[in-house]
Order: sequence, then structure tokens, then C-alpha cells
Amino acid sequence: MSVSTQEFREAMSRLGSAVNVITTGNITTPHGFTASAVCSVTDTPPTLLVCLNSSARVRPAFIDGAGMCVNVLTSDQKELSGIFAGPYDMSQRFDSADWSVLETGAPVLTNALASFDCQIDRIVEVGTHSVIFGLVKAIRLGTSGGGLMYFNRNYHDLPHSHGGDS
Amino acid sequence: MSVSTQEFREAMSRLGSAVNVITTGNITTPHGFTASAVCSVTDTPPTLLVCLNSSARVRPAFIDGAGMCVNVLTSDQKELSGIFAGPYDMSQRFDSADWSVLETGAPVLTNALASFDCQIDRIVEVGTHSVIFGLVKAIRLGTSGGGLMYFNRNYHDLPHSHGGDS
Repeated sequence: MSVSTQEFREAMSRLGSAVNVITTGNITTPHGFTASAVCSVTDTPPTLLVCLNSSARVRPAFIDGAGMCVNVLTSDQKELSGIFAGPYDMSQRFDSADWSVLETGAPVLTNALASFDCQIDRIVEVGTHSVIFGLVKAIRLGTSGGGLMYFNRNYHDLPHSHGGDS
Repeated sequence: MSVSTQEFREAMSRLGSAVNVITTGNITTPHGFTASAVCSVTDTPPTLLVCLNSSARVRPAFIDGAGMCVNVLTSDQKELSGIFAGPYDMSQRFDSADWSVLETGAPVLTNALASFDCQIDRIVEVGTHSVIFGLVKAIRLGTSGGGLMYFNRNYHDLPHSHGGDS
């Protein structure tokens, strides 16, 4: 018994996820793409991971030891998600938003919900994809906002407001 | 410059994620826990990953070659999420829902939004956590339902209905 690509994608569309713009390089030579396959690994030391197609044109820029910034998008940044997932070159992508830097020099998105500035610590190749582990070196929390989620092949907003236990 | 555990957790609370019950073992000797750190890795071959604290009591049951089922929870399964994250023994956890099996024998949750029945292919240790890669051997799509998400330290529901492009 085996699972088809189509069946896997249909089932994966039911696993909702946050939408993020992942960057590397620096402000003058930036690289970036939209990713939903991001998750927390451990808080000791603070580490996350990002999955990236090994054949993506940005892949060669993500190398061991380099900076990598994971920018979590707000519900107001839907258009930016499309731009960083679309057929635009890097200057077109980065010209569509404002950027600064924290510790590693990787571009940090202004007004992201949260930005994790990481140093790439390890890259594990799994089939067609690279799993990139980042050690978090600096964090910037953006202004409050709702979260942008992708679920059932559509964007959804999650409200910022807390439910009462915090 | 370094990032504290507290700062990392605060920022991570802004990365919304789906809520899942991960199982291994079999119907008579089941093991399971609630996890939000799950993501798609590649569709060739269909592969996902799950992060698990290496000191968790269920950790020894997740071994290379074993079955592992990732059950994506619906918005109606909030209580089950709490039970599989709480101080209950395995029989108490599994008695609180209905289970079957697909290919590997790992318990498959009845009425999950989607279930990915996997064989554990590789486990990578990163700091305090184990990153478990599962090759998807079988899939079951549940009855339609909303998705259960965790964001800003609260549960949220995502509607099942599509937005019009599908």
C-alpha cells in the first residue's frame, strides 16, 4: 500500500499552519521565500526548523553558519506572502516591504508578528527537501496583530486578542 | 547577545499551529501525546516530521522502524488535546476516544480531520528534543470539520468551508 502525492497533499491541506517569510543573505544581497513548514524544535537552546525544496532557486543561499530570519506574517501581510511565493526576482520581492537587521545580518521584516534571527546550525537532506535548523540569536516582537494561517488551501486570520487566561 | 527561554516562548506563541495527537505502539499497548510541532517535509516520498521532548515518558516508544500515526484534530476535539497533554496514563488517554488501525498498526483516531499512518524513518536529536521523520504509508481523511489551532496560548477554530477557489 502506498500513498500518492495527490492524496498526501489533500491530507496536508488539513494541517493548518502559520505563514512565514524566510530570509538569508543581507540587506544589499537578500534572498527570501514564503514557507509554512516551520516549527519550534527546542527552547534549550532556542532552535527552530524550516523545510525548503532542495531545487528552489533560493536554496544555495541557505548554507551552514549563515544567518536566517524567520518572519511570522500578520493577517495584514497576505499580499507579501504571495509576492515571496510568486515568480518575482529578489529585488522585486524585497522592494515590496521594509527591512532592517538584528544580530546575523539576515533581513528582518518590519511589522512581522515575530521575527527569529537565527544562525543555521545544521541542514538535513530528506528526499527532495532540506530541513534547515536555526539557532535563534535574536528576536523581535512586532506590533500586535492577528496571525495569518493557511488551511484548506485558503488564507485565514486568527485574532490577536487573548482568550482570558493571560 | 542571547535569547532567553522566556523570550523564545513568547515569540513562538505567535507562530500558530495545528494540534495533533501522535501515537505509536498498537491498539493493545498504545502510546500517545499531543503535539503542535509537526510539519510536512516532502511529498516524494510523502514524509512529515514531529518534534518530541527527549525526556517525555512516551519517548522510548518512538523508535526507528516503528509505526507512528499523526492525527490532526478538529475543532471538536479540544478536550482530547488536553487529555493527551495532561497527567493521565496511557489507558486513561486512549479510553477517552475511539481508535482503529490502517497499515502500521499504530492507533488511528476515529473522526480526526486527517490521519497520517507512518513508519519512523529517521530520528535526529537536537538539544533536548528528538525530531522524528515519518514515511507516510497510509492516510485516512475524516469527516469534514473545522481545524483546531493553537495561537497566542489559546485554542482557535478554523472553519472547514473553502473560500471560493476550490
